Amino acid sequence: MLRLGIDLGGTNIACAVVDDESYEMLAKAKTPTNVPRAAGEIFDDIAKICREAMQAAKVTAKDIVSVGLGTPGTVNAGGVIEYANNLGFNNVPAAEMLRERLGQGMKAFVENDANCAALGEAYAGCGNGAKDFVAVTLGTGVGSGIISNGKIINGVNNAAGECGHMVIQVDGEPCSCGRRGCWEAYASATALIRQTEQSMKEHPDSIMHELAAKEGKVSGRTSFDAMRMGDIAAIRVVNNYIKYVACGLINLVNTLQPEIICIGGGICNENETLLKPLRNYVQAERYSIHSKLQTKIVKAQLGNDAGIIGAALLGKA
Amino acid sequence: MLRLGIDLGGTNIACAVVDDESYEMLAKAKTPTNVPRAAGEIFDDIAKICREAMQAAKVTAKDIVSVGLGTPGTVNAGGVIEYANNLGFNNVPAAEMLRERLGQGMKAFVENDANCAALGEAYAGCGNGAKDFVAVTLGTGVGSGIISNGKIINGVNNAAGECGHMVIQVDGEPCSCGRRGCWEAYASATALIRQTEQSMKEHPDSIMHELAAKEGKVSGRTSFDAMRMGDIAAIRVVNNYIKYVACGLINLVNTLQPEIICIGGGICNENETLLKPLRNYVQAERYSIHSKLQTKIVKAQLGNDAGIIGAALLGKA
Repeated sequence: MLRLGIDLGGTNIACAVVDDESYEMLAKAKTPTNVPRAAGEIFDDIAKICREAMQAAKVTAKDIVSVGLGTPGTVNAGGVIEYANNLGFNNVPAAEMLRERLGQGMKAFVENDANCAALGEAYAGCGNGAKDFVAVTLGTGVGSGIISNGKIINGVNNAAGECGHMVIQVDGEPCSCGRRGCWEAYASATALIRQTEQSMKEHPDSIMHELAAKEGKVSGRTSFDAMRMGDIAAIRVVNNYIKYVACGLINLVNTLQPEIICIGGGICNENETLLKPLRNYVQAERYSIHSKLQTKIVKAQLGNDAGIIGAALLGKA
Repeated sequence: MLRLGIDLGGTNIACAVVDDESYEMLAKAKTPTNVPRAAGEIFDDIAKICREAMQAAKVTAKDIVSVGLGTPGTVNAGGVIEYANNLGFNNVPAAEMLRERLGQGMKAFVENDANCAALGEAYAGCGNGAKDFVAVTLGTGVGSGIISNGKIINGVNNAAGECGHMVIQVDGEPCSCGRRGCWEAYASATALIRQTEQSMKEHPDSIMHELAAKEGKVSGRTSFDAMRMGDIAAIRVVNNYIKYVACGLINLVNTLQPEIICIGGGICNENETLLKPLRNYVQAERYSIHSKLQTKIVKAQLGNDAGIIGAALLGKA
C-alpha cells in the first residue's frame, strides 16, 4: 500500500510517496521551511509538495492509505505539536491541519522526527525489520528513538526516547537541556569539537591546528584526521570521545538489550574507525556476558530518507 | 483464572495460587532453597510447595492455567536459566523441569525475578494496571524491570532491564558488574552505607557514630535517622544519595517516559523523606517540561509478593 511520509525540518520540508511493503520511495518533493512564519502557511506548502509527489508518482489521494509527519519537538497523542522551538510552534494541531488540506478522510499521524528516523531505519534500513531497535544520531545533539516490539516507545507523553539527555557524568558538562553531564554533552559532534578545541589549546604543536586552519574551522573530523596522521593529542581526543559514546551505548544495551543499535549522524562517516572500538567497549562492559545473543552495533543506512520513510510507516507500525 | 506464581530466591522459595483477575493470592507456601544443591532437588521442592499451595487453595492442577517462575540471573526465551550465580545454576531447563513435575500439559514460564516484580507491581500493585511502567528496587543492588505496553521488555537475550548498570559517573566507583560508575554503585543501599561510612570517617563527631553503635552496624537508616536529628554530615550524605538516585530516575524518565516509576527496597521505608525530594529533582530536570502528562514517582506496594504475583501473571501478560 502507498503512504505519504513528510519530514518537516527547521530548514527544509521533504515528502515522498512510499510503498509500505518494499519501502521504495516512488517520488519525492521538497521545499524550504522558511521559518519564522505562520504554521498555516507552512502546512499549505506541505500540502503542495504532497500533491507534487503524488503527481510525480502518478497517484491521487485515493491511492494513499495514510500520511505521516515527522517534526522536531514534542507531539501529543492527538497529533498536536505541543512545542517545537526551531519551528516556533506552540500547540499546532498538525494532524488536523494535514486532514484539512489533504482531505478529511485521510488518516494522519504526527511523530517526533528522531522517532520517525528510528522507525524508518528499523523497518527499511539497517534494522532489516528488527523488532527491538534503537537509533542514535551523533549530530549537533545526540538524538535517539526506541523501537520495541516493532513500535515506537512514546511513553506517557510522547516524549520518550531522549537518550541523549541521560546523565553519564553527575555534575559534568552543562547541557542545553539544563542538566549537567548528559550523554549529548560528551558524545555529540558539538561535544567532540569542544573536546578537540580544548586539546588544541593544551597542545599548540598538535597537527590538529594545521588541519583546522586548512578546513577553516575545527570540525568533527579534525581529531580523527589528525589521529590517522599519528598525532598523540588527537589520539587521546578520539579515544576519550569514543569512550563517552560507548558509555551511553552500553547503558542502552544494559537497559533495553535491543537487537540492533544503529548509529547515524556526521561522525558515522568515520565508519569502522568509530564502530570497531565502540563494539569492543560494548563487548567488554555489557552486563549480559553470559548470553549468546547480543546487541549489534551498526551504521545507519538511510540518511535523511529514514525520517521520511519512518513518517510514512507511522500508519502501519 | 488461577495461575501458580513461584519466587525462587537464594534463601527461600515461595509460591502462591493467584487469581489473575483480582490478583488475590488464594494460598501460599514456602520452603528454604538450601543452596548449593542439585537443580533437580530444588525443583522437587518447588513442585512440593506448588502442590501444598494448590491443596490449601482447594484446587488441583486442572484448575491452574499456567505456572510462572521468577529467578535471579539470566533466563532465555526457551525457559532455560542460563546463569544464576547465587543459585549455582548453569543452563538449567527450568520450564521443562516444572512441566516434568507438574504435568506436561502445564504451560510454564520462566523470567528474571526483578522483571516479575515489575510486572506484579504494574498490574496488581502501585501501577494499578499502568501499561508503561518501571520498577526500581534500591536494595543490595539496584534492580529494575521495564514494562512497555503491558509487557516486560526482555530485549534480544531476555537480559533487558538492568538499569542499575547504567553508568552515571564515567570512571566512577567500581561496580560488581565490572564497569565503573554504575547507578547501582551510588544508589543501592550498599552504596548508601559506603557513603555513610565515608562521611563518618571524615566527621568523628557526627551523631551517626552513636546511632551505628546503638544498632550494632552502619545501615541504610543511619544517615536518615541522624539527618532527622539535625546532624549536618548526615544531611549531606542523604542529600547526595538522593541526588544520585534522582539522576538515574531522570535518565529513565527522559528515555522511557513511563506512566509510573515505582521505588521499592528497604530504603523506601523512608517514604516521603525519600520520595518528595526525588520528585522535586525529577520535576526540575526532566526533559519534557512542556508536557502536561508526567511520570509519577511512587512507592512499591506489594513487597515480596510482587515477584510471586508477577510470576503468576507471566502467562497472562
